[in-house]
Amino acid sequence: MERIKALQYGVGRMGRNMVKFMVEKGVDVVGAVDTVNVGKDLGEICGIGYPLGVKITDDVDEVVSQRQIDIAVLAVTTLMTDMYDHIAKCVSNGINVITIAEEALYPWETSPVLTARLDKLARENGVTITGSGAQEFCMVNMITQLAGTCHKVESITGTVRYNIDDYGPVVAEVHCVGNTVNEFNAKIEKRGLLPSFLRNCAEAMCADMGLTISGVKASCEPVIEDVDIYSKSLGVTIPAGKLVGCTDITVIETEQGVTFDTRITGKCYKKGELDTNRWEIHGYPGPNVENHNPPFDIMTCATVVNRIPDVINAPPGFITCEKLPKLKYRAYPLHYYLTRS
Amino acid sequence: MERIKALQYGVGRMGRNMVKFMVEKGVDVVGAVDTVNVGKDLGEICGIGYPLGVKITDDVDEVVSQRQIDIAVLAVTTLMTDMYDHIAKCVSNGINVITIAEEALYPWETSPVLTARLDKLARENGVTITGSGAQEFCMVNMITQLAGTCHKVESITGTVRYNIDDYGPVVAEVHCVGNTVNEFNAKIEKRGLLPSFLRNCAEAMCADMGLTISGVKASCEPVIEDVDIYSKSLGVTIPAGKLVGCTDITVIETEQGVTFDTRITGKCYKKGELDTNRWEIHGYPGPNVENHNPPFDIMTCATVVNRIPDVINAPPGFITCEKLPKLKYRAYPLHYYLTRS
Repeated sequence: MERIKALQYGVGRMGRNMVKFMVEKGVDVVGAVDTVNVGKDLGEICGIGYPLGVKITDDVDEVVSQRQIDIAVLAVTTLMTDMYDHIAKCVSNGINVITIAEEALYPWETSPVLTARLDKLARENGVTITGSGAQEFCMVNMITQLAGTCHKVESITGTVRYNIDDYGPVVAEVHCVGNTVNEFNAKIEKRGLLPSFLRNCAEAMCADMGLTISGVKASCEPVIEDVDIYSKSLGVTIPAGKLVGCTDITVIETEQGVTFDTRITGKCYKKGELDTNRWEIHGYPGPNVENHNPPFDIMTCATVVNRIPDVINAPPGFITCEKLPKLKYRAYPLHYYLTRS
Repeated sequence: MERIKALQYGVGRMGRNMVKFMVEKGVDVVGAVDTVNVGKDLGEICGIGYPLGVKITDDVDEVVSQRQIDIAVLAVTTLMTDMYDHIAKCVSNGINVITIAEEALYPWETSPVLTARLDKLARENGVTITGSGAQEFCMVNMITQLAGTCHKVESITGTVRYNIDDYGPVVAEVHCVGNTVNEFNAKIEKRGLLPSFLRNCAEAMCADMGLTISGVKASCEPVIEDVDIYSKSLGVTIPAGKLVGCTDITVIETEQGVTFDTRITGKCYKKGELDTNRWEIHGYPGPNVENHNPPFDIMTCATVVNRIPDVINAPPGFITCEKLPKLKYRAYPLHYYLTRS
């Protein structure tokens, strides 16, 4: 079996981690696309310790049409509307795609037309598109398999919390940090809700469990503490009573009577507060599962790289994560896991 | 597709739950074997609320040879040496087997000869044998998939704790509750260590991760508290300094350098102490996962029943849980999930 040839499409913080992981797992990274660091060596930018002999380029068309590439690893942006052209370019040139774009994890409900078009394009070109990241196990496959330990599932509730100060001032402002409740309400009314990637996770769970979605409700709630909290990203102290963040809530009803209630909170942390990923199944019996302080950013990079053989092995089309085989640790170079000859 | 015909082999507390679950999931329970309650109606014994028209019998041979049965659900005992005849009888008669016998979860290392013989017998008869229970997800597949979110795994540590008072006086005595440390040491020296089912779980994980076992070490440590604890099952108060239980430790080394360190503690609980199932992956990154107060007994019964279609669908042989498809919740009658026509 030959080594896998990969294109890193987007060489930001996540892309650089994934390049490192790929190199350490025996993947030939033969191309790198970005609009910054153009002309620089990929190995240097990613801190590999030696030049990879691959220059970062902003000429996507040249890369995808002129080089022999098995898979493109896309770390560009979040939403399907923004990802469509990037994905289509790879797929049209016979390149499999894996992406950390959050909506791509399960975009059949939130962007059905774009997804169907990409699915058709992928089938025509005999390649696979998959959205991945830490959430594919921790917020989809782990939960549906835990549901498999139950005789009767009535509802599934998910609680995810992250430190908004890890994501800079723009994210803090979008999440209304420092606003009064009135300001928050006015802002939400004016701009509408932001997309919640837990909705895509819940919809992937419905697909995995064979459940038919009958309704989706989204809302957003302010998060307020009764103590002052310093916001590192904004550089100011948020007084008690003003927003330190907010919670995006998605409730999904299914025809089979199973309800999903997911809540993701981004907030400035009090001392001792940690990230969490906690899920409860209500039914018979009612097990729960929790990841304490999960390192989701590195888990996302590792998951995507470990998934590369699965995506190459998968049938053509837009194959979402719940349809892939069990996620596996890769003790050996990634091409050892290919089923193609 | 026709409804699945099942035999309940062992109608104790676990067997009765599984019969209820099967009936509620559209399985025809056409036979029931036990040495107690012989001649009584299975529905009555299992609290179904109406007679099932199936009498409990101790004549295994009649049941397995005379009735048309797709799968036998075995809840008899724990070890492969004790299970061999029960499993062989079903398999020789062309009946698939799923069992909660703890060692059967992954018996290739602890009972290689018996397992190979059963594997051969199953292949000859075109049927599948699988060991299952809550541990197949919570102590095998959940952990190996979490390892799939990691770039590098150095070791995996598991900590399981259960209330020994839930299992009656015999188990409490076997676990040396009330003994001094000297008495504990003498007892362990005399009788040797008990088998730890976490060893079988860790060995299933090695198989799932493609790791080669290079060494297994087992030990047992006394558990002592600095307060008096009342033992419900023994009906006495254990003074501080005497054993309230013990911890079985299994350490497995692999040629690939990944170490497994599993610890299962059975003890009399202090007020507020709860069961737990906690696993940590050490490497890059280092995620963890925990089930708080997991209802393992009911999870075991539900897992086994939900696995029935997977076992029937599986290729012939002794197919251990890490080789089965992802565990799934069954929203529909179980025969809907059969791939046979």
